[in-house]
Amino acid sequence: MPRSEFSLIRDYLTGLGASREDVRLGVGDDAALLQPPAAHMLAVSTDTLVAGVHFPEDAPVASIGHKSLAVNLSDLAAMAAEPAWATLSLTLPAPDADWLRDFAGGFDALARKHQVALVGGDLCRGPLAISVQITGFVPQGRALRRDGAAVGDHIVVSGYLGDAALGLQAWQGGERQASRTSPLIDRLHRPGPRVQLGLALRGLASAAIDLSDGLASDLDHLLTASGCGAEVALGQLPCSEAALRYAGTTAARQAALAGGDDYELCFSVPGWALPALAGIAADTGTPLSVIGRVVEKPGLRLRQPDGRLLPVSVRGYQHFSEEP
Amino acid sequence: MPRSEFSLIRDYLTGLGASREDVRLGVGDDAALLQPPAAHMLAVSTDTLVAGVHFPEDAPVASIGHKSLAVNLSDLAAMAAEPAWATLSLTLPAPDADWLRDFAGGFDALARKHQVALVGGDLCRGPLAISVQITGFVPQGRALRRDGAAVGDHIVVSGYLGDAALGLQAWQGGERQASRTSPLIDRLHRPGPRVQLGLALRGLASAAIDLSDGLASDLDHLLTASGCGAEVALGQLPCSEAALRYAGTTAARQAALAGGDDYELCFSVPGWALPALAGIAADTGTPLSVIGRVVEKPGLRLRQPDGRLLPVSVRGYQHFSEEP
Repeated sequence: MPRSEFSLIRDYLTGLGASREDVRLGVGDDAALLQPPAAHMLAVSTDTLVAGVHFPEDAPVASIGHKSLAVNLSDLAAMAAEPAWATLSLTLPAPDADWLRDFAGGFDALARKHQVALVGGDLCRGPLAISVQITGFVPQGRALRRDGAAVGDHIVVSGYLGDAALGLQAWQGGERQASRTSPLIDRLHRPGPRVQLGLALRGLASAAIDLSDGLASDLDHLLTASGCGAEVALGQLPCSEAALRYAGTTAARQAALAGGDDYELCFSVPGWALPALAGIAADTGTPLSVIGRVVEKPGLRLRQPDGRLLPVSVRGYQHFSEEP
Repeated sequence: MPRSEFSLIRDYLTGLGASREDVRLGVGDDAALLQPPAAHMLAVSTDTLVAGVHFPEDAPVASIGHKSLAVNLSDLAAMAAEPAWATLSLTLPAPDADWLRDFAGGFDALARKHQVALVGGDLCRGPLAISVQITGFVPQGRALRRDGAAVGDHIVVSGYLGDAALGLQAWQGGERQASRTSPLIDRLHRPGPRVQLGLALRGLASAAIDLSDGLASDLDHLLTASGCGAEVALGQLPCSEAALRYAGTTAARQAALAGGDDYELCFSVPGWALPALAGIAADTGTPLSVIGRVVEKPGLRLRQPDGRLLPVSVRGYQHFSEEP
């Protein structure tokens, strides 16, 4: 049944996420009114998901709601910011109440988990796309940036890389129910942002970035911002059991290096901070793998299994590719 | 020439708008780092423009950049908030550098005018759409909300209503260059948000809303939030000379009542504040028209030229219409 945008917003998009005392006026006026905390900076990021580009058109609807928030939380994680407020711009082809209910359910569950309140948004007609903007808090001088890596620092990644890229391959190939593909597809549809890890890295990591376009591409951004290079050992890239079983070692490593949609953190730590990582891994329930070192020579080079050191020519996902 | 998203962001979307000292880290990391002011609330709003829905597909590109920010500034104006920071999510069908340069030019000029810094965003491939989120500041307890109108208050609107709706009609009808249509089309493409007026209304207006869907629809939101009704005189609706010449009195008044895209303010003021309006109109260069009174009986009624008082049945633009 067709419904007005106002009744749809009222019924499905109001009150999503956590209740927070710092939200003085939420959804329903021209703007939300929010009380920022003293002695903190705001960390602000935005990411858009477009159907058929960032998620398959036939992805489970609740997972679209989850993922639209997760990719933004991942940006806050990479800044070591504590999530607080989100806004949502939703463009829908038709006023589908069932779709909205499922979408809101996925968004709401993840928002509550991370104490995020949905404070505003709009709903309009058009090709399916979701823009989320997120704001978090970080004490003065404690944010993680991309430009702090120093020569000699160790390069660390969280979790397992490449699962989502292989999950997309499986999804597109129609292998959707098999036990060997479902862990990969779950990583594609429901990435888990590393918010707690990011907070734990305050004062330890020298630089951080979240992995959305693929390790090779995203690590290159961090290195460029920091004015240095890196050597990474291909054999140290963390591949999951599921990825290795599904794709074999070579393809799994390739996915770990160049596949996108991981939403893990990649960060640099000075040697003195290395011993603290085991405790952080345990406390946050996050596998952490040291994959290489920061070096002076610009660019990313990859230590092959045979010992050769080769420049990385693979790239991550780009919406608009350069001409060769 | 195809270009990567990263080079397009660097060349066209970095450094837009004003330079602000409270932006400690702008475009280029996982999130921006922003310093909120003491003793202020943040006012946060977001609006998306979709090609073919919110603007004609063939609208001048610079005007799309202007309008995408203007509609968000208008929301801050209605809260009496001072604009500060914006983020931009841009979805483009192709990496068109000329398009981006023109879009950025329109966005940048309006942002500088209102001291807004672009602090983050993303660029991705898909059907043309622009999401902007804006943050402004308002001292504690000084924001204008929708829910403060009281019985006996006067209802005031800024500027002239209906021009943009008639401008759309002219644009779609191909009457684009004529001197009689160009002022209307300019109002459609380049709305001027009433930021200074909103700031001047702090402490005077009892409630405010910006007019985006049409006066009848938007005023109804204000009245519903305030738990009252209103009587508005059709003959008092401010129609521009251009609107009256182009459409005649009856159609111009209809456009003023039900046309969208005005981005004027509609607000209520108690009787004691009425004398201050003339000075505010002069100081801010904004025509202000008293169009009616707030009454106890819910709903919006319109005083016809023949003296009859009729309920308003027209509605503003809705993305998804209710079934009748």
